[in-house]
Amino acid sequence: MYDILNTINSPADVKRLNVQQLETLAADIREALFNRLTKFGGHFGSNFGIVETEIAMHYVFNSPQDKFVFDVSHQSYPHKMLTGRKAGYIDDSKFHEDSGYTNPDESEHDLFNVGHTSTSVSLASGLVKARDLKGGKENIIALIGDGSLSGGEALEALDFVGSEIHSNMIIIVNDNQQSIAEVHGGLYKNLTELRQTKGKAANNLFKAFGLDYIYEENGNDIQTMIKVLQKVKDIDHPIVLHINTQKGKGYKLAEKYREAWHWCLPFNRETGEWNFSFPAENYTALTADYIMNKAKQDKEFVVITAAMPMAASLTPELRQKLGRQYVDVGIAEEHAAAFASGIAKAGGKPLFVTNSTFIQRAYDQVSQDICINNNPVTILLNYASFNGLTDVTHLGIFTLAGFSNIPNLVILAPSSKEEYLNMLEWSVNQKNHPVMILIPGNEVTSRPADKNYDRLNTFKVEQNGEKIAILALGDFYQKGEALAKQVELQFGFKPTLINPRFASGIDEKLLQELQQNHKLIITMEDGILEGGFGQKIASYYGTAPIQVKSYGLKKEFYDRYNPEDLLKQLGMTTDQIISDIKKLNI
Amino acid sequence: MYDILNTINSPADVKRLNVQQLETLAADIREALFNRLTKFGGHFGSNFGIVETEIAMHYVFNSPQDKFVFDVSHQSYPHKMLTGRKAGYIDDSKFHEDSGYTNPDESEHDLFNVGHTSTSVSLASGLVKARDLKGGKENIIALIGDGSLSGGEALEALDFVGSEIHSNMIIIVNDNQQSIAEVHGGLYKNLTELRQTKGKAANNLFKAFGLDYIYEENGNDIQTMIKVLQKVKDIDHPIVLHINTQKGKGYKLAEKYREAWHWCLPFNRETGEWNFSFPAENYTALTADYIMNKAKQDKEFVVITAAMPMAASLTPELRQKLGRQYVDVGIAEEHAAAFASGIAKAGGKPLFVTNSTFIQRAYDQVSQDICINNNPVTILLNYASFNGLTDVTHLGIFTLAGFSNIPNLVILAPSSKEEYLNMLEWSVNQKNHPVMILIPGNEVTSRPADKNYDRLNTFKVEQNGEKIAILALGDFYQKGEALAKQVELQFGFKPTLINPRFASGIDEKLLQELQQNHKLIITMEDGILEGGFGQKIASYYGTAPIQVKSYGLKKEFYDRYNPEDLLKQLGMTTDQIISDIKKLNI
Repeated sequence: MYDILNTINSPADVKRLNVQQLETLAADIREALFNRLTKFGGHFGSNFGIVETEIAMHYVFNSPQDKFVFDVSHQSYPHKMLTGRKAGYIDDSKFHEDSGYTNPDESEHDLFNVGHTSTSVSLASGLVKARDLKGGKENIIALIGDGSLSGGEALEALDFVGSEIHSNMIIIVNDNQQSIAEVHGGLYKNLTELRQTKGKAANNLFKAFGLDYIYEENGNDIQTMIKVLQKVKDIDHPIVLHINTQKGKGYKLAEKYREAWHWCLPFNRETGEWNFSFPAENYTALTADYIMNKAKQDKEFVVITAAMPMAASLTPELRQKLGRQYVDVGIAEEHAAAFASGIAKAGGKPLFVTNSTFIQRAYDQVSQDICINNNPVTILLNYASFNGLTDVTHLGIFTLAGFSNIPNLVILAPSSKEEYLNMLEWSVNQKNHPVMILIPGNEVTSRPADKNYDRLNTFKVEQNGEKIAILALGDFYQKGEALAKQVELQFGFKPTLINPRFASGIDEKLLQELQQNHKLIITMEDGILEGGFGQKIASYYGTAPIQVKSYGLKKEFYDRYNPEDLLKQLGMTTDQIISDIKKLNI
Repeated sequence: MYDILNTINSPADVKRLNVQQLETLAADIREALFNRLTKFGGHFGSNFGIVETEIAMHYVFNSPQDKFVFDVSHQSYPHKMLTGRKAGYIDDSKFHEDSGYTNPDESEHDLFNVGHTSTSVSLASGLVKARDLKGGKENIIALIGDGSLSGGEALEALDFVGSEIHSNMIIIVNDNQQSIAEVHGGLYKNLTELRQTKGKAANNLFKAFGLDYIYEENGNDIQTMIKVLQKVKDIDHPIVLHINTQKGKGYKLAEKYREAWHWCLPFNRETGEWNFSFPAENYTALTADYIMNKAKQDKEFVVITAAMPMAASLTPELRQKLGRQYVDVGIAEEHAAAFASGIAKAGGKPLFVTNSTFIQRAYDQVSQDICINNNPVTILLNYASFNGLTDVTHLGIFTLAGFSNIPNLVILAPSSKEEYLNMLEWSVNQKNHPVMILIPGNEVTSRPADKNYDRLNTFKVEQNGEKIAILALGDFYQKGEALAKQVELQFGFKPTLINPRFASGIDEKLLQELQQNHKLIITMEDGILEGGFGQKIASYYGTAPIQVKSYGLKKEFYDRYNPEDLLKQLGMTTDQIISDIKKLNI
């Protein structure tokens, strides 16, 4: 096993192989992918489909002199194995050493940390510009999947390169006929036409952007790919090399069920079953239930996603049932946000659901298209928690810092199942505000909750007490509850416990009242402190004779941390907070 | 004068006119445009070029049942005059009643507040979706200029509409062969080809996105436009109507100098000269000087702009001198940010300059492409001030709230000419941080400043004092200085005056020291308080026996305010702050 892969310590080792050895290397890489992915999970289909192309890339080009930029990194694993990092795939004890994304800290063969889509052409064109200013001669290659093409950043970049770059640049478009879910967008009709005509169709998106273009049907054939890459190597202008590959190639189930196998958790190779089951009751499943019921009752309700249907557990079956009340815009968050604003303006009830980290891609649209216009769009965010995705490119801890300071936007942070579902229903039906709801990141808990949230920024006092008031926002409400109990045990008095619910404003009346019999306000939030909730409270009390101690994460790009360890490291466990309180001498 | 225009109180009045009257109406509208623009300024070329088309639109369609969405609103003035708002153009006393942008508060004929580009197709497609869910039959029309097409949001939307919308929608592409500055991007080669072949070219960007398409050469002919609009009215699927028009039509200077006449201040109609001159020394002129000198000395230095060269006073002559050290990416901020990151990664020295309000369009790219990768890009922002652009869509007061909480990003707020230029030079040369510099929004002032900013977050004590410490950030430093003087006069002691310089972090050591002999910390910043600088200071002192009072704007979408009045209204004048201090009993 791994006979050839074991000999590969750098791209130079790839160049020494003969035809048959290259084929064996491809098989070895797939075995190594199986080894890591069955046990550790990760991006599956895109990596299985790109093995031959990346072997050919390293055979033909000279990385790191020649520079590769991998869009969204979903297809970077074979490249990693060929650049000194095979251990992260074949040695189970070293899985953790490999980030799953390109990462300059791991290797000089990786240029950028990348985990959001549609960035590769822009980033690569910057490398081109710097090379030309410095008088370099190296090849610069961007590898981008068809799914990523629909993103505005990629389209802007293709347009730019098509007229403003006049030197070597190779854009490999890996067309595996699949985004994360199915592809959506007119350009995919053009890609189909181009595949069907073997690149000859007169109408050609890339040429319409001013780009030179060639097509290669056999993207999964190493020899073919070596030939075509040799042809474009050292080219003196930008060219798009459109290749046809099979997503999931080498694993029957993945070839057949391309969406299900875009990404996987540890699984059984024989059956394809994941060695992991989600709790029967979880917040995304509750979201799917809500959506299906609401859609049935209300024909003006429409769910929008930007290639992230699973952020609301919307399986292909459920999507089909939703019919025209479901719109996947493809990877196009900017459009999704403005589209939702248009729907709301005309009286529809749009619910835009995605992962927290991706809403950043529509920052200006949330601000301008939605919030200035005050249109009642509901934006529903998954993984807006330190306890969600922990890769540096997918952190959900910046949402409040970024969005809670946009005027008109009401951000709700529910703390129980009932509160979450009531907020959803209230938000979808009301016509007065754009609303963002953070899907809870912890286990489902149950507690009675209000139905109406019309009175903005009214915090809920869940326990009346004295001396200390704990404002525990959203996901951190349960931590606030635990702290309140511990305060009572240790100090012998009941503190006040508050469920703020609103993350985008403060309840001035309540904060005013708290001054009467409290000496310390503790705020707890599931995100970075800077720009978030606690700092608003601290500022409100700036000149008041009351202390405010805020708990939250630091403004930092954490990467692959253990959530509980991080809290401890930041001094945010119940015991640590109790110890802080003791020092304050309340 | 205005014989026909005077009879127009709603679109119904347009429909009653005969051919000759429609022509006279066009002439009246141009006279009305002259009246407002010579005296009040505004968007010039795009409005002069679209007169005939908008008359035809109101002749053929039935607004507000049929719905028009105007991209970026730069071409909405004729529409406004035809929908009951001619007074804002012909009655000098009512100029202020018209916002210069589409605005639903003004008229039911305006669907959205729009001032950023590239949003119209998305917004209109949302109206389409809601119409279809409700079973409506009205026409939905987006009008977008060629310059706006390069923006990611517009490209995402064209792609979406090309496959996901199957009902009536008309996208009028107003091709006047000009962006704000000249157009940049490969798609403009395709538009040229389409114009040259009268729409027959086989390669067609819009068709590549799956859209139906027709071309009309005579976009400045009312009769022709009426005919072509009648043809597409009530169409049962989306279509692009590509029209050729002349930007600035009706004013020779504007026809010839299209960039100079994109937008104007009050001017002399005979000579074309603006009745306004900028102070000889101003910050954008200083920026241009810096750029020209730096480019000469350092061949790795490159200036990037997204259609906003004038944010750094880079005239066409200067741009030409810069040669390949100047890149205008067109309206494509996302690409600009990632492109800059690529340049920095490969050792170049990129300076990306734009208006503060537009950097929001690259929020995710600043965060992911630049800051996670910690690449040394310098982002230079004009109008990041309450005292800059005051239209609701162009406010510069949200920059700190949005960006100062992104990790790794160093935000510098200079308080004098020397500090600004030193910061620029330091930032461009250093290799350790992405840096954002806020171009001062007030008059040029002179004061010695440090050259080196390597020690991040070190605030500068400009005057040592006692009891009160004033932390006056960037543009507000001079207000801090005035306050310090007034404190000394009124209370008889010298307060401490601090120039924070860094807006993205706090100087913990200094803040600690201040506790020894200060009872009150005053923070002042040129932006909203929420998420900004002062709240970070307040939070730092949360449990300390020291008071913090922060001055800044409210989290609100202000629109067309008088800056000085606003400060007064918010209690931010020196006198008002002095009176606050008296109440605090220091």
